[in-house]
Amino acid sequence: MAKEIERKFLVDELPAFITSQYHGIDILQGYITNDTSGRQVRIRRKGGKYYLTVKDRGLLEREEVEIELSEAQFHALWPLTEARNLHKKRFEVPHGTFTIEVDVFEDKLCGLVMAEVEFTSVQQSQQLDVPSWFGKEVTEDLHYTNSHLASSQQVPDVRL
Amino acid sequence: MAKEIERKFLVDELPAFITSQYHGIDILQGYITNDTSGRQVRIRRKGGKYYLTVKDRGLLEREEVEIELSEAQFHALWPLTEARNLHKKRFEVPHGTFTIEVDVFEDKLCGLVMAEVEFTSVQQSQQLDVPSWFGKEVTEDLHYTNSHLASSQQVPDVRL
Repeated sequence: MAKEIERKFLVDELPAFITSQYHGIDILQGYITNDTSGRQVRIRRKGGKYYLTVKDRGLLEREEVEIELSEAQFHALWPLTEARNLHKKRFEVPHGTFTIEVDVFEDKLCGLVMAEVEFTSVQQSQQLDVPSWFGKEVTEDLHYTNSHLASSQQVPDVRL
Repeated sequence: MAKEIERKFLVDELPAFITSQYHGIDILQGYITNDTSGRQVRIRRKGGKYYLTVKDRGLLEREEVEIELSEAQFHALWPLTEARNLHKKRFEVPHGTFTIEVDVFEDKLCGLVMAEVEFTSVQQSQQLDVPSWFGKEVTEDLHYTNSHLASSQQVPDVRL
């Protein structure tokens, strides 16, 4: 299993350089299950490829296994994600030795922008030089997990 | 989604004609998740083919979606079923217009034999002519669901 360590921030105002300099990748993703044990099964279309990903419990740190799906496999499973899916554009922005993934949500979550950075260790995650355009950190806030957002009908209220 | 309606019985003594007249198909199956909402994700190797199946809540009646997996996809996902998998041989025995699936469990569940019959309606399920070699009906007994058995270390105590 690969280990995923990431920090996540709200972005109140998307800097113009991101959409002008980078190409957004279209992502459609939905959740087949959200287990009590914290195990999630997600399917995703990213660009022209399809994936099934199983993630284990944890917010900052998670284990995951991913396989590529065929288009037919993806379409057979997609109806299972009804009311548990979302649509976003992802911009991958270099930042020193890291890559910032900027997710601009669409449709029912229009207006929400989040930035995520992945790390190889918890220690490294604490050494992030946080860009000035990052807003509130929401790494530990369950409202901003993609699986929770997928089941939401609107952008979470930041004051909560 | 396909609807699955089935009744399930214990078999105390496996009739000799079954193993002499029918060829058992080797089945290895494991569970990736067992959701609180009752949604299960199962992967299975049956004969030489591989499947991923998502089943919704319900004992007698369940909805399911199944896709075929490649061998590589199956093997990537299999470690996720650790301590939630089982091995059995299945014999498909014609019985009037029905097919009886006789599952002879192996390894940790050695000694357990169950017979299942699938129906197209709940009404039809009540018209089954129950063979004399069928034992106790366990359709509604959670101990005998395959997902529960997969997590068990031994055959359930029938007196429970």
